[in-house]
Amino acid sequence: MKRVKLIVAYDGTNYSGWQIQPNAVTIESMLNLHLSELLGEPIRVIGASRTDAGVHALGNVAVFDTSARMPAEKISYAMNTRLPQDIRIQDSCEVAADFHPRFCKTIKTYEYRILNRRFPDPTRRLYSLFYYYPLDVENMRRALAYLVGEHDFKSLCTHKEEVENTVRTIYEADIQKDGDMISIRISGNGFLYNMVRIIVGTLLRVGSGYYPPEYMQELLAAKNRQAAGETAPPQGLTLLEIRYL
Amino acid sequence: MKRVKLIVAYDGTNYSGWQIQPNAVTIESMLNLHLSELLGEPIRVIGASRTDAGVHALGNVAVFDTSARMPAEKISYAMNTRLPQDIRIQDSCEVAADFHPRFCKTIKTYEYRILNRRFPDPTRRLYSLFYYYPLDVENMRRALAYLVGEHDFKSLCTHKEEVENTVRTIYEADIQKDGDMISIRISGNGFLYNMVRIIVGTLLRVGSGYYPPEYMQELLAAKNRQAAGETAPPQGLTLLEIRYL
Repeated sequence: MKRVKLIVAYDGTNYSGWQIQPNAVTIESMLNLHLSELLGEPIRVIGASRTDAGVHALGNVAVFDTSARMPAEKISYAMNTRLPQDIRIQDSCEVAADFHPRFCKTIKTYEYRILNRRFPDPTRRLYSLFYYYPLDVENMRRALAYLVGEHDFKSLCTHKEEVENTVRTIYEADIQKDGDMISIRISGNGFLYNMVRIIVGTLLRVGSGYYPPEYMQELLAAKNRQAAGETAPPQGLTLLEIRYL
Repeated sequence: MKRVKLIVAYDGTNYSGWQIQPNAVTIESMLNLHLSELLGEPIRVIGASRTDAGVHALGNVAVFDTSARMPAEKISYAMNTRLPQDIRIQDSCEVAADFHPRFCKTIKTYEYRILNRRFPDPTRRLYSLFYYYPLDVENMRRALAYLVGEHDFKSLCTHKEEVENTVRTIYEADIQKDGDMISIRISGNGFLYNMVRIIVGTLLRVGSGYYPPEYMQELLAAKNRQAAGETAPPQGLTLLEIRYL
């Protein structure tokens, strides 16, 4: 028996997110299906990050146990001949039997992309949010800087009954503008439900002049979801990387 | 009666190219359908470039005549509320009654993107060619430089009975590598059938060491399609711009 770690990239457009649900096609269900067929035994993966419907990933992580003889390194190639084109394993390797993708310390990095121009671009619509009104990127950068460090992000997440501790640490947060594409990258030790998308929804309000950048301090102190902006739509969000410490 | 020019952007993934055909959905047929509905009279557009199935465009041009009262500038916005998300008008304006999108002198610019890495990236699969083997971009650049200027491109096109003159001028040709993405941009006064895709197919052979860069001279002189590389697949190709002189 060995434990295998997969780095999984996917275009989330056509999936109901990561997690298995009845009557829906999810990334987890596709991995279980094709791993079970490939290895000839029932496989159940454990995912590192349960991304929402429509969210993309370049480096999500899944782990499973198998008694199959296939070398771990070959599983990526074998799986890529079976999976649909919108899911591609980027790497596979053996890990320690006690490695757990969610209970280890990690740095996760997300990117959210906003296409800020006059008309939508059909060739970028699936991987960014189209936003018509001009955005003040400098003010968005100043607002974003208030989030770096350890904070209670209760104002910036969707409430979940089972989550008691809403304190998280953001290590790095950056915003870049390249032509008409604004990219926001955020790295942290963990993210609450919808946290990146609510941060982005709030930054959109800052960028369009509705909130001043300093409002972020007030918002963190408020510990009230109603004080933040909307949840930005999923297609702009990509889980870039999960780094295990 | 007025003549209106549209700048048309589209994701070609789900279309059988530009030109109307029986039993297929094309960009031209979608424009005719929605313009006719919007303006309340039968509209037939004339396109500048009849892109192939799967090829994308940011700046294709279409022209049509209408007696409708709607100001030309408003047609872009009105059409974008009707068209599917993978087609978006970027601009609409009135032009002279004798303006013809194909018979005027133009500079057309195409871009072909090659994703050169170990594993495919699902979030870029629809807008680039995935190529596993490492490519020598410097040799590709040297090969590409031989094509700039006026040449007979008979070796670098798919034969069409009705095209007698295969001499075209390439004004600029450039290749850039940004991370794992190689972008080839070519501007010229006109392009023969499959010309950019056959140029790219040939550059792939140069980049992987099968042909030396100097082979391009020999190839142009041969005037023989068999001497060139394969036609690269459509999804890597985007018509960026058509500039009217």
